[in-house]
Amino acid sequence: MIGLNVTIWNEFEAEQENEEVRKVYPQGIHSVIGEFLKEKINANTATATLHEPEHGLTEEVLNNTDVLIWWAHLSHEKVSDEVAERVQRHVLEGMGLIVLHSGHHSKPFKKLIGTTGNLRWREDDCHTRLWTIEPSHPIAKNVPMYVDIPQDEMYGERFDIPAPDSLVFISWFAGGEVMRSGCCFTRGAGKIFYFQPGHETYPVYKQPEIQTILCNAVNWAHSGRNAEAVSCIHAEDSPESLRYEKGE
Amino acid sequence: MIGLNVTIWNEFEAEQENEEVRKVYPQGIHSVIGEFLKEKINANTATATLHEPEHGLTEEVLNNTDVLIWWAHLSHEKVSDEVAERVQRHVLEGMGLIVLHSGHHSKPFKKLIGTTGNLRWREDDCHTRLWTIEPSHPIAKNVPMYVDIPQDEMYGERFDIPAPDSLVFISWFAGGEVMRSGCCFTRGAGKIFYFQPGHETYPVYKQPEIQTILCNAVNWAHSGRNAEAVSCIHAEDSPESLRYEKGE
Amino acid sequence: MIGLNVTIWNEFEAEQENEEVRKVYPQGIHSVIGEFLKEKINANTATATLHEPEHGLTEEVLNNTDVLIWWAHLSHEKVSDEVAERVQRHVLEGMGLIVLHSGHHSKPFKKLIGTTGNLRWREDDCHTRLWTIEPSHPIAKNVPMYVDIPQDEMYGERFDIPAPDSLVFISWFAGGEVMRSGCCFTRGAGKIFYFQPGHETYPVYKQPEIQTILCNAVNWAHSGRNAEAVSCIHAEDSPESLRYEKGE
Amino acid sequence: MIGLNVTIWNEFEAEQENEEVRKVYPQGIHSVIGEFLKEKINANTATATLHEPEHGLTEEVLNNTDVLIWWAHLSHEKVSDEVAERVQRHVLEGMGLIVLHSGHHSKPFKKLIGTTGNLRWREDDCHTRLWTIEPSHPIAKNVPMYVDIPQDEMYGERFDIPAPDSLVFISWFAGGEVMRSGCCFTRGAGKIFYFQPGHETYPVYKQPEIQTILCNAVNWAHSGRNAEAVSCIHAEDSPESLRYEKGE
Repeated sequence: MIGLNVTIWNEFEAEQENEEVRKVYPQGIHSVIGEFLKEKINANTATATLHEPEHGLTEEVLNNTDVLIWWAHLSHEKVSDEVAERVQRHVLEGMGLIVLHSGHHSKPFKKLIGTTGNLRWREDDCHTRLWTIEPSHPIAKNVPMYVDIPQDEMYGERFDIPAPDSLVFISWFAGGEVMRSGCCFTRGAGKIFYFQPGHETYPVYKQPEIQTILCNAVNWAHSGRNAEAVSCIHAEDSPESLRYEKGE
Repeated sequence: MIGLNVTIWNEFEAEQENEEVRKVYPQGIHSVIGEFLKEKINANTATATLHEPEHGLTEEVLNNTDVLIWWAHLSHEKVSDEVAERVQRHVLEGMGLIVLHSGHHSKPFKKLIGTTGNLRWREDDCHTRLWTIEPSHPIAKNVPMYVDIPQDEMYGERFDIPAPDSLVFISWFAGGEVMRSGCCFTRGAGKIFYFQPGHETYPVYKQPEIQTILCNAVNWAHSGRNAEAVSCIHAEDSPESLRYEKGE
Repeated sequence: MIGLNVTIWNEFEAEQENEEVRKVYPQGIHSVIGEFLKEKINANTATATLHEPEHGLTEEVLNNTDVLIWWAHLSHEKVSDEVAERVQRHVLEGMGLIVLHSGHHSKPFKKLIGTTGNLRWREDDCHTRLWTIEPSHPIAKNVPMYVDIPQDEMYGERFDIPAPDSLVFISWFAGGEVMRSGCCFTRGAGKIFYFQPGHETYPVYKQPEIQTILCNAVNWAHSGRNAEAVSCIHAEDSPESLRYEKGE
Repeated sequence: MIGLNVTIWNEFEAEQENEEVRKVYPQGIHSVIGEFLKEKINANTATATLHEPEHGLTEEVLNNTDVLIWWAHLSHEKVSDEVAERVQRHVLEGMGLIVLHSGHHSKPFKKLIGTTGNLRWREDDCHTRLWTIEPSHPIAKNVPMYVDIPQDEMYGERFDIPAPDSLVFISWFAGGEVMRSGCCFTRGAGKIFYFQPGHETYPVYKQPEIQTILCNAVNWAHSGRNAEAVSCIHAEDSPESLRYEKGE
């Protein structure tokens, strides 16, 4: 089976600047994600990072991407509007998008959801627990009823997003907060999954259940390009007039 | 009872440039809408138009607006990004927004929904029929099971919007199309209603059932400002630590 | 202003049989709820209990009820199918329904949602915290961003309900669980609110924020009877044929 | 690839009693559906009909069914409550269900949705047109933007269903009505698709686009059994207490 084309985008700053992060992800978060996607669902993976020309997301790269994964934390404003709008357009035309952790504040995500993406947060080494809300959703396949994450940053409600089309996971935080942490959105002909876990100082993406969720998410987010479905169509002839002309 | 503060925004170009439109709405679409809102729900109405400074939508005007109504057709690009983003911000903080007819392509609406707003269209004098889908929705109050509109422009599916939070009306068009024509969205702390009927060459806004729907929509869209709900909150102390400190 | 007709239904067993419960609600949970609804929103309240004939819910009582509130815990099976189906029918025709706490397992609620209503539970004196998810929803009006409940029974996910039409509150529990604890459903022409807090051994319904939520819920759930909207209509003449007959 | 186990249930009365129907479906609607599912998606098909013992839907048959398809028209009341509740239980535990045409009034569907399933109807040889609303939905894969159906019974709004979790198709009828004709629901751990086309006197299920939709629907509706997800769990030990016991 030929796998999907998955491009993993990463700011790739913290891993280079911060010793603590480098210890967890010496080759960068994107390479860890790329490896398990290759191994587990046979994805054709590529990576792209902030400091490449056009942030590595040229028209050609996106044309060849079935699903784009976006990890970012602090440098959202360094992403050009042009590239952010290019990503938005590709999603609307059918490219899947998976937005991880602080990507709630990334330009492409905010352009696609229309809200601020703001939330409540606290950087502590907080125990988190992910509860499965929609067990029949493809993203929850083979995911247990709850998943413990020993340490992660707290991101909590109120999370300023539109009500998701499907709410797959809700998280519990030891400090007293909750969050809609696994949210599906359909926008245009494209599918988007926001997934909260994954602060850069903790090995969250090395956890098997988290890898299962992300593999499922890639398969779910892929629906194929369909630019016609989001185009403006001046239908000079009505379907009824066309039908009568054909003598039906 | 003191009424809501409703600002009705109109491009106000067609009524001045086009004899056919002027016959239907000699003082502009905005003034007809303003009059029935005053009469039927005691609204405090104000109007604003494209060619006023800041399109008539200064920070002060929006601060004093409970619900903004937006009618536009061809000059979406003449609206400045700054004003469009100002409207978006006010909606997210709780101002109601009612988007009429071609407003599906307006900058504020597209920024708030994140999709193209594209659709299928045809300018004919087409009979349209609005079917009530959610009879218990406040916007459907006292609206019959279906409403005939003798002539209107055809706007049909696929309409590139996110799945609405509530789908109140679906329209039938004589030429063979359908449309999700009355759609509610919640974005941030604000409520948005898109309503398809109302081409400028037909007296659609003079029809009593359409006026009932718009009066209901104004009442529904008002929820009050709540900027805190869409702000980013750095919660240094967790609710649990605060609770223990208080000795609870 | 004439208030809404609210009927509060209670099993009314625990308060009579259990000393611990009687201390908290000496006249029954229903009387406490009735009192604050009268005081705060001028409701015309009536009560009905399990051991009355027809459980106090005759056709006449329901015909005169705008919103029915349902508190129950252990005796769901003692409610007759006939009365449960009567309540279901009235809701579908437009009567509002507010289902409290263990009412998730009541016959009328299960018939209306179609799922089991099952959940995870534990009877401990657990600290609970209610987070407001949809601040612009009428039920969240004047409700703070979170509400602490010092002690309540734990009801957690996975809660087997259909995805709610609006998710207004999510709860955090000290033991590690979360729950969709404030859920709106529209069924037929009627509106339903499920609200999790309120175990009989804790004075949850005496808490001001909880009272605010229930007052809001009563106002929201009222939409008026509309039996036509849920009837089967044999439309022998099509709208188009009727239109041509009228010469339109 | 081993295909899914699909059981196709049919009243199988009209085909035996009515000459007009027999001409269209001489071996019954179920056999036509079974054949294209076998051919196009390699399904392992079985059939079951009203007049078999237990209507052909024993516990064993359902245990071995991934997706159940239900076609029925006039004899809904002849289905026993026991079998209807058995089907409901299997759906909640994860069996997929596809409800065709008049199945909107079938006992299993009404038990699962909680509403009346009532609608507006007229038996005429009406031209119908199906519009694709969610192009990225798996059920819309390879389905054109609209599908003409030369003749079918009219089923129109208001259709008394809960707002579907996804609205994939809306239909236009020549007589002036519209209908939410392709609706997805998730209930418990199971997925349900209601699809309106398919009156017994027209060869609708022989149309290639309709067959594509039904093949897609079978693949979408299959999510596997997950009884745990809909069970009531008395969690005597909280996840937090278990964690501390393990010394985490």
